[in-house]
Amino acid sequence: MLKLFEYNWQVRRDWFDWCETVSEEELMKKRTGGLGRILPTLYHIVAVEYGWIVGGIQERTVNLPPFEEVASLAEVKAFSDRCHGELAPFIYDWKDSLEDRVMIDITDEGEREAHTYGEVLRHVIAHEIHHIGQLSVWSREIGKKPVTANLIGRGLFPG
Amino acid sequence: MLKLFEYNWQVRRDWFDWCETVSEEELMKKRTGGLGRILPTLYHIVAVEYGWIVGGIQERTVNLPPFEEVASLAEVKAFSDRCHGELAPFIYDWKDSLEDRVMIDITDEGEREAHTYGEVLRHVIAHEIHHIGQLSVWSREIGKKPVTANLIGRGLFPG
Repeated sequence: MLKLFEYNWQVRRDWFDWCETVSEEELMKKRTGGLGRILPTLYHIVAVEYGWIVGGIQERTVNLPPFEEVASLAEVKAFSDRCHGELAPFIYDWKDSLEDRVMIDITDEGEREAHTYGEVLRHVIAHEIHHIGQLSVWSREIGKKPVTANLIGRGLFPG
Repeated sequence: MLKLFEYNWQVRRDWFDWCETVSEEELMKKRTGGLGRILPTLYHIVAVEYGWIVGGIQERTVNLPPFEEVASLAEVKAFSDRCHGELAPFIYDWKDSLEDRVMIDITDEGEREAHTYGEVLRHVIAHEIHHIGQLSVWSREIGKKPVTANLIGRGLFPG
């Protein structure tokens, strides 16, 4: 599980670097699909990971700033760093014995849903990779090479 | 690991169903990003999964048909079913003790690269999710709702 989080965090950093090479106008331009804009997509990835792990599993009070309060590349990066600092210890301390523990989620419709920690973590992993796939299309629309999505070759599994 | 493969296989089936609601012309239309076409993307996802697991890890001889030989929705689905039938047992029989076993990959440049089984499986998982993210953008371009990428709510973790 940890390796897929490390993959996501590394890819996210690479996308933040990629963003440095693009104007803020392009980062906020309305596009087709997903959340429709590059920078809000990166914000959303961070907020969802943080919400499920810190708010959901850890049941800590979560006060996420709305996007408008962190609506620049530097601020979304700082937001990502803060959230990562808070949630990474949980991922690094993960044990398979936590797999079947249950958390209760209150849906937007006010319903209570039970999910195992294992399901939540995999949901968060897939969520980020999916949105990053959308960024890769938008990158080509701008005429730029996207960050590689390859997991192999990132040094995540030192030989 | 298994759960993320099951997620991918379920999402892939949903996309094949989605494809039934779209003309073959749309499935083959040139688009921006990734492999640039919907049906070849689904073919590619299947071929990559099969190539790494059956050809790479299992070291079995792999004779993948080029896309041109299976260039219809029905044929790509049948190709996916065949590949899945061959490789799924390996995934269902997976044990964590296989995690650090090493396979040798010969790259397109003819170089030998060593990868652990664990790295290869995670690469394959992330590869499919990434390309599915691209399909979701192209779906909106066609004016259609994409298949949900949510892992939660798919019944993968029966409560």
